[in-house]
Amino acid sequence: MKIAVVGGGSTYTPELAEGFGANAAALGIDEVVLVDPAADKLAVIGPLVRRIVRRHGSEARVAWTDDLDRGVEGASLVLLQLRVGGQQARIGDEAFPLECGCVGQETTGAGGLAKALRTIPVALSIAERVRELAAPGAWIVDFTNPVGMVTRALLDAGHRAIGLCNVAIGFQRRFAGLLGRAPEEVVLDHVGLNHLTWETGVRVDGRDVLPELFAKHRAALADEVDLPEAVFADGLVPSYYLRYYYGHDQEVERLRTAPSRGQEVARIEAELWEVYRDDTLDHKPEQLSRRGGAYYSEAAVALMRSLLTEDGAVHAVNVRNDGFLPYLPDEAVIEVSAIVDAAITPAVRTPLGPRQRGLVAAVSAYEELGVAAAVHGGERRVYEALLAHPLVGQHDLAEGLTRRLIATGRDHLPWA
Amino acid sequence: MKIAVVGGGSTYTPELAEGFGANAAALGIDEVVLVDPAADKLAVIGPLVRRIVRRHGSEARVAWTDDLDRGVEGASLVLLQLRVGGQQARIGDEAFPLECGCVGQETTGAGGLAKALRTIPVALSIAERVRELAAPGAWIVDFTNPVGMVTRALLDAGHRAIGLCNVAIGFQRRFAGLLGRAPEEVVLDHVGLNHLTWETGVRVDGRDVLPELFAKHRAALADEVDLPEAVFADGLVPSYYLRYYYGHDQEVERLRTAPSRGQEVARIEAELWEVYRDDTLDHKPEQLSRRGGAYYSEAAVALMRSLLTEDGAVHAVNVRNDGFLPYLPDEAVIEVSAIVDAAITPAVRTPLGPRQRGLVAAVSAYEELGVAAAVHGGERRVYEALLAHPLVGQHDLAEGLTRRLIATGRDHLPWA
Amino acid sequence: MKIAVVGGGSTYTPELAEGFGANAAALGIDEVVLVDPAADKLAVIGPLVRRIVRRHGSEARVAWTDDLDRGVEGASLVLLQLRVGGQQARIGDEAFPLECGCVGQETTGAGGLAKALRTIPVALSIAERVRELAAPGAWIVDFTNPVGMVTRALLDAGHRAIGLCNVAIGFQRRFAGLLGRAPEEVVLDHVGLNHLTWETGVRVDGRDVLPELFAKHRAALADEVDLPEAVFADGLVPSYYLRYYYGHDQEVERLRTAPSRGQEVARIEAELWEVYRDDTLDHKPEQLSRRGGAYYSEAAVALMRSLLTEDGAVHAVNVRNDGFLPYLPDEAVIEVSAIVDAAITPAVRTPLGPRQRGLVAAVSAYEELGVAAAVHGGERRVYEALLAHPLVGQHDLAEGLTRRLIATGRDHLPWA
Amino acid sequence: MKIAVVGGGSTYTPELAEGFGANAAALGIDEVVLVDPAADKLAVIGPLVRRIVRRHGSEARVAWTDDLDRGVEGASLVLLQLRVGGQQARIGDEAFPLECGCVGQETTGAGGLAKALRTIPVALSIAERVRELAAPGAWIVDFTNPVGMVTRALLDAGHRAIGLCNVAIGFQRRFAGLLGRAPEEVVLDHVGLNHLTWETGVRVDGRDVLPELFAKHRAALADEVDLPEAVFADGLVPSYYLRYYYGHDQEVERLRTAPSRGQEVARIEAELWEVYRDDTLDHKPEQLSRRGGAYYSEAAVALMRSLLTEDGAVHAVNVRNDGFLPYLPDEAVIEVSAIVDAAITPAVRTPLGPRQRGLVAAVSAYEELGVAAAVHGGERRVYEALLAHPLVGQHDLAEGLTRRLIATGRDHLPWA
Repeated sequence: MKIAVVGGGSTYTPELAEGFGANAAALGIDEVVLVDPAADKLAVIGPLVRRIVRRHGSEARVAWTDDLDRGVEGASLVLLQLRVGGQQARIGDEAFPLECGCVGQETTGAGGLAKALRTIPVALSIAERVRELAAPGAWIVDFTNPVGMVTRALLDAGHRAIGLCNVAIGFQRRFAGLLGRAPEEVVLDHVGLNHLTWETGVRVDGRDVLPELFAKHRAALADEVDLPEAVFADGLVPSYYLRYYYGHDQEVERLRTAPSRGQEVARIEAELWEVYRDDTLDHKPEQLSRRGGAYYSEAAVALMRSLLTEDGAVHAVNVRNDGFLPYLPDEAVIEVSAIVDAAITPAVRTPLGPRQRGLVAAVSAYEELGVAAAVHGGERRVYEALLAHPLVGQHDLAEGLTRRLIATGRDHLPWA
Repeated sequence: MKIAVVGGGSTYTPELAEGFGANAAALGIDEVVLVDPAADKLAVIGPLVRRIVRRHGSEARVAWTDDLDRGVEGASLVLLQLRVGGQQARIGDEAFPLECGCVGQETTGAGGLAKALRTIPVALSIAERVRELAAPGAWIVDFTNPVGMVTRALLDAGHRAIGLCNVAIGFQRRFAGLLGRAPEEVVLDHVGLNHLTWETGVRVDGRDVLPELFAKHRAALADEVDLPEAVFADGLVPSYYLRYYYGHDQEVERLRTAPSRGQEVARIEAELWEVYRDDTLDHKPEQLSRRGGAYYSEAAVALMRSLLTEDGAVHAVNVRNDGFLPYLPDEAVIEVSAIVDAAITPAVRTPLGPRQRGLVAAVSAYEELGVAAAVHGGERRVYEALLAHPLVGQHDLAEGLTRRLIATGRDHLPWA
Repeated sequence: MKIAVVGGGSTYTPELAEGFGANAAALGIDEVVLVDPAADKLAVIGPLVRRIVRRHGSEARVAWTDDLDRGVEGASLVLLQLRVGGQQARIGDEAFPLECGCVGQETTGAGGLAKALRTIPVALSIAERVRELAAPGAWIVDFTNPVGMVTRALLDAGHRAIGLCNVAIGFQRRFAGLLGRAPEEVVLDHVGLNHLTWETGVRVDGRDVLPELFAKHRAALADEVDLPEAVFADGLVPSYYLRYYYGHDQEVERLRTAPSRGQEVARIEAELWEVYRDDTLDHKPEQLSRRGGAYYSEAAVALMRSLLTEDGAVHAVNVRNDGFLPYLPDEAVIEVSAIVDAAITPAVRTPLGPRQRGLVAAVSAYEELGVAAAVHGGERRVYEALLAHPLVGQHDLAEGLTRRLIATGRDHLPWA
Repeated sequence: MKIAVVGGGSTYTPELAEGFGANAAALGIDEVVLVDPAADKLAVIGPLVRRIVRRHGSEARVAWTDDLDRGVEGASLVLLQLRVGGQQARIGDEAFPLECGCVGQETTGAGGLAKALRTIPVALSIAERVRELAAPGAWIVDFTNPVGMVTRALLDAGHRAIGLCNVAIGFQRRFAGLLGRAPEEVVLDHVGLNHLTWETGVRVDGRDVLPELFAKHRAALADEVDLPEAVFADGLVPSYYLRYYYGHDQEVERLRTAPSRGQEVARIEAELWEVYRDDTLDHKPEQLSRRGGAYYSEAAVALMRSLLTEDGAVHAVNVRNDGFLPYLPDEAVIEVSAIVDAAITPAVRTPLGPRQRGLVAAVSAYEELGVAAAVHGGERRVYEALLAHPLVGQHDLAEGLTRRLIATGRDHLPWA
């Protein structure tokens, strides 16, 4: 069984390597191939991944290549972890919306659209190679942000794709800690759109303990997601991405003085490359935890296991709505706790309330328009998507953001 | 056949009187009763309405009373045109949201919620008297803003109610003018929520001429609704209330320097009262047109005819969604062109696009929460409704607006 | 020697009474007369002041009257502590600027101008009666905000007036605490305009210890004035009113959610009236400290002593500039540490830097225009003053604020 | 007599060439040398300038060089027209302040400071070569923006420098047109700081005709400077740069949607280079007028004549204050109509009013701090200058702008 990691030259890959190494047997992995256009990065990451996998006692083959076709050929599972344009593009995404008074963030708002527009065409062209060359029935597992939109574009093009995010597993670990339980004992009712989710229930031994969690840990939860307690009054836990909505203007103020996250990550990555070059290193270094993406590896390996073995475990995944949220079109992609066996079946018992529904519907409409803009191109479609976004919503802003998005991102927009 | 006009002491009533007078025979009106707690206003408006009706040659009885029960007793049709708190409350609604940087408007945003909160309890208590005392099967026709929310509250309480707004008839007249047609030849596909509607089609002799209207009159239409042409790029015509969304911040800037609309209307009304006191006056004076509400009378009389005769004409009305917009709950109230006969059947052929859908879903969710706040009261519910509103959406704003709404409106909030 | 307190019906007066009582002999007070148009308030405050003075063992006569002429007749010293329009007007001053996105505060910005406009005409007409009826050479000591502008208007009209604020004495007490010294050992270099001052030096035994204070207590000082430490980098301590400048937009955000200070004070005052009605009370109650104005009484009594005895003590007072700050006109009123003997001589050794100078010059220009608007009236002058204010500075804001200021304050503006 | 133009490779130089050609005899020009580090630009501009000068019948030598020393050696007059970092740096200056909600402009606000910081060190090092190599008593005439700050830095370093701007000559031409007079008959009372000036008087035959201009052409003047008429109520004409102050937020809104001026100029310049390459071209092409800088050539040539011949003509120049504006330090640089003979003597009869004074004092304080930051460097000094600027004035903004200014401009900041 072969796994290909496209974007395998990322500083993040050692995190995955730990997961592959620890679960190589359980997953039946014979070979891991890292694929990346940056051969120089592979030359550092590849050997490190091999050492990590070996440290776990696995003898799975670890290879690397800048040839996409060779990399995905025969793979049963292809992970997508792309960053088109690199941290430099991210720094741009975080800055240009601020010029219009809008939050600058790499997955939310105009910055997220910019990322979607340059990423989706690349993801689609990779997926075409997977369709042609990978093992029959191979899965594409997408970690690439904005996960919901990328997954939707892949599904629209007929690929066998599923999207994964680490927000849910983070909550699971956090709640488990507060409850004094093992993480695997805690099952979440996680629902919404990627980076726009709520936990509507937290089940332990089949019982919803969310009310108790609120009763005891309200302040800790508010702190966790950086939102005032009032926002919890309807009894659901929003992800911390909701602060870009419920605390938008404060976030803009913060970003005006705070150092840019992209610049910070660029610094961390520079440091990581230093560390990675040490050819005795055989585990992920501590610094990697400051880069973001906590528990991603665990979530990914567990999901891969379920996809490969159809074990019926529950995962928070990005899949077609297909009627689960009645206020969204069937073709919308939602993020939801689902049972993964031969089918993928949403398994959330407590629905979202009206406050969430309205927001989810508005953002889903934006995603529909944003995917259309990414696939078909054109200034006009970018404007429509931005005008539909609840964090933009105004003509002047949509126009100014459209102009800036295209000026900033032109190099990565095939149609611009 | 008796018609009761609750809020009949309004300066607007002479407009209605013209409609009643001109159509008394067609409608089979035997009696019009104006009901208002302000006996002094009735003492001026009542005789004027009688003179207007007489001028049209009608012998229908015209009466007035400050006794609600007597007014609605035996009525077949009860018009609601309330302004709880008068222009003074409106001036407050237009001002307090600005303190938080939000648009101050009497039907949209926080100002609209303030109006809903003080109006719905009054409308409901009037409707209870109608249920008890009016003719069996009597209709309540609501003109009272926010029409969508008031209508929803009435329907939720089991009343036979329908809501009416003058936006659609205004477009019909305008399009007819541009097309060189008689208004009744022009049938609109009008759809959305009250004060959040679009014309998705304009049919003349069964053919949709909206594309031609755009081709020839794009600039005139943009001017009409005070929005840039770019907003029309998806081929639908938004109502001018959409400028509070698509041009929110500009509107806030405008309101910061412009004189308040409420103060202006208060001045116009003071002038109207002067004119109305002339006991030779037997028609609506020219000044009335500056007060807002153009064509309301025509729309109302035509709808009343359809309700009473089930003639199958098309009207833009506020009714239960009942599945017509699949992304809204059945219980939502929508505003839609509908065939009014024994049933009321939406008759819009071209649906809204994703950009509209997202916004409609978000505002409908707000309306659901807003009606709950009006019916059940409580600071918490006010906050939830505001947080759900796409023009608010942030915790800080929702909190500040909630505090101000309650401080400003306390006198008219039964629970505060 | 007779002292008249105009506005003596204020809830604040018991604070003064403590000072009068404790220093009656030193000051040579024979009589204290409280003057206020509100006879009902005097009926409560008057006896309380008498009991407080008596508790201190003084036999000075304590009287009260709503007749201004009788009150000031023969007085050697007249204290002005007015609040024209009461807390209700203050609540308005704090709200209307927010509608334009500007800070709402009772002494700073548009709210401060509103207060100046309604207060200066009253202060001037009181001063005319003092000129006519008080003892020859009587002083007017003004506590009434905005102290700088009120004092300037009084001086322009030829009155023997001096303005006093409690910011400096607050710093003196605070620094003394940090230094482990008695307050009277600490001499401040306090300079700027009322509510726009900096401490440029802190002398103990003739030596400037401000650098040491910064070295040890930078964070405490920053906390004290609610400003980030960076603002101190040039080595001066701004008063906490500077946060309305250096933190303007944050302050606006805060005011959007915070309860209004005026409403809070109104609540405290309601409570104080309850307490004051207890006719066994013979000292200022603890609650008074929450009303603001800490140490005012001490500052006032000490200044009165210097004015009456020409003892050469240093006080922070509002006086004509007369060349002390070379970048301001001679007629400007500044707030400055000064030696009070037969003359009043500024005694600040370390000057303001360029950052302060620019701001002081701009605000002083506003004050000049604001006083002209108060004295001569007219929408045009109000606009000019607001346009000159560094916290306004824009045409649209000046226009919107002018309209609102006049609409809100009309009842107290003689010319509107 | 030799004239050196440093920055002579600018697309603007042909404008100057027309002036030199037409006035070569009157000015006694023997040689014009264009100096620029960009030899490729000189290779195009140099021959064009020569052809233009020849077309005017002048035989003055026209040379060009990328060797600064050779260029300025023996020159009697050195013009500085630098653009350190080129249009690319300007595009950055126009963008980064918007991220903080502040106007992005190349001479005003944070963008202007960015330009000053990278320009002043270069101007100073050029001036050192001039001091060493040019003819004794040679003048440096600075056109380089921000002219006031660059001139101040040159004067502070002891150079014989004077600054020139085209705002005044533009008004002169405009007023002359309105009055039906020849430009040279119109003498302005022009006063303030560079790009922060007002016309306080307009003299024709010694009589101030400004009141008449206002009476007849108020709307045209308002239109000219893009400001509402209310701003003129005190009878002075602000330059159009004042719209960045009196209309700041509107300007920010405009910049959010408008294409960047820097990008526009970059396009115009690309076009100009095309045109300039035509080696038959012997006059400035029409397109040059769209690049900005109208009448600069006339103003420059006229000033040069006065400097060289001490003819006593009146020019609007940037010179030391030396007591002319009593509210500014002597060392401040002001822009003022002045008689240029052996001395340079301000000749403005009508002073600025308080509204202008406050703003001028505040901006002058900023300029003092900004020049210090440019000369001595350091993040701290940048922050102080920004905090002092009336368009910034807040800690958060100053901090965020400082960070961005340094991040954006690092390549041209010797100390960063």
